[in-house]
Amino acid sequence: MSELIIWTLDWVPEGPRGFVRDLRLRWACEEAGLAYTVRTVPFDDRETNHLSRQPFGQVPFLSDADLEIFESGACLLHLARKSEQLMPHDRNGEADTLQWTVAALNSIEMVSVPWWFLTLSGQEDNDLAGWMGQRLQQLEEVLSQREWLAADRFTVADLIMADVLRVAKVRAFTNRPATEAYLVRVTDRPAFKKAHADQLAHFAAGDERRTTNS
Amino acid sequence: MSELIIWTLDWVPEGPRGFVRDLRLRWACEEAGLAYTVRTVPFDDRETNHLSRQPFGQVPFLSDADLEIFESGACLLHLARKSEQLMPHDRNGEADTLQWTVAALNSIEMVSVPWWFLTLSGQEDNDLAGWMGQRLQQLEEVLSQREWLAADRFTVADLIMADVLRVAKVRAFTNRPATEAYLVRVTDRPAFKKAHADQLAHFAAGDERRTTNS
Repeated sequence: MSELIIWTLDWVPEGPRGFVRDLRLRWACEEAGLAYTVRTVPFDDRETNHLSRQPFGQVPFLSDADLEIFESGACLLHLARKSEQLMPHDRNGEADTLQWTVAALNSIEMVSVPWWFLTLSGQEDNDLAGWMGQRLQQLEEVLSQREWLAADRFTVADLIMADVLRVAKVRAFTNRPATEAYLVRVTDRPAFKKAHADQLAHFAAGDERRTTNS
Repeated sequence: MSELIIWTLDWVPEGPRGFVRDLRLRWACEEAGLAYTVRTVPFDDRETNHLSRQPFGQVPFLSDADLEIFESGACLLHLARKSEQLMPHDRNGEADTLQWTVAALNSIEMVSVPWWFLTLSGQEDNDLAGWMGQRLQQLEEVLSQREWLAADRFTVADLIMADVLRVAKVRAFTNRPATEAYLVRVTDRPAFKKAHADQLAHFAAGDERRTTNS
């Protein structure tokens, strides 16, 4: 068994399939050529059954030999220290990748996920829509001037930013051609496609287990 | 002049004083004993006057000799690599600090800042209050079992988590005694008090400059 173990749920309903954040870790390992195994915690009682390993009851978390680490953003930065495929290891390249990874987590996703959350109980034009539009426009300005966010090459910052953007259904916000092209460019990578297909297959297999057990 | 330069605004109104995020960087430098200088960009036209250095028009950003880095979370992790006062540099201690730093940025602040944003146009019991309460309760469970978030000692993860919690006016959510005690414990540190006082003095000096110029 490989030393890297990505922990996710054994099953989720149709809606979140293809979006559960273990995909970020699968994708990073595929980009870097790092061997990994996927293991599971139960979907049932997921909010409380693994709090000792993830204090907010979420997935994924990552085992790496003697250590365990949660928060997908932290797991990605941990993996990026292992592989220059994910982040250049020179001082400037590392700082550039770090700032854009945190920008995805804290300047974009801090708006996009709560915006999405509010859409569940109302409409897309909710109280966070203006802020969301502003941040996406600021990102559009950046992406209209370059192909990748950091260090003039694909890095883990693009991986997480693209994942944040596709989850946020950025397509609901029109007239962002550079962001649209960026999203296509990043998710066209074979490593994304494999990680995405593998996650769908994983949860489909979970369907069969649940049917067998019920 | 020191190699580390913390960039912030030259002035802000009364409301945000003591809460502008340059405080996180001042605090970290004070904890680590790192020499730093504070320099400014203008408050007027702040949303567009420094986009080339901070693409979302925010502060702070940090100059460190030949490189510049934005996102306070990224700046803190960058500084933490310089000083064991901020993060143990062994493999496990670093992973633990990293996961809790990202937890502050992405599991707590991703809820608390949008919750706070909604309070501006309505009441505290808004559509994000339930989610906010849940996350704070999960954090309360953790803090009721230990003094510091990571590595059994103060780290930059406590610095950012405490700053996130105090900005979020966590006191609006009652019955979290462990979180309350934690917040007092972390913000009682001399380095926080100095950073806080220095920020207040900095913006007060800005008052005088604006009065003189007008």
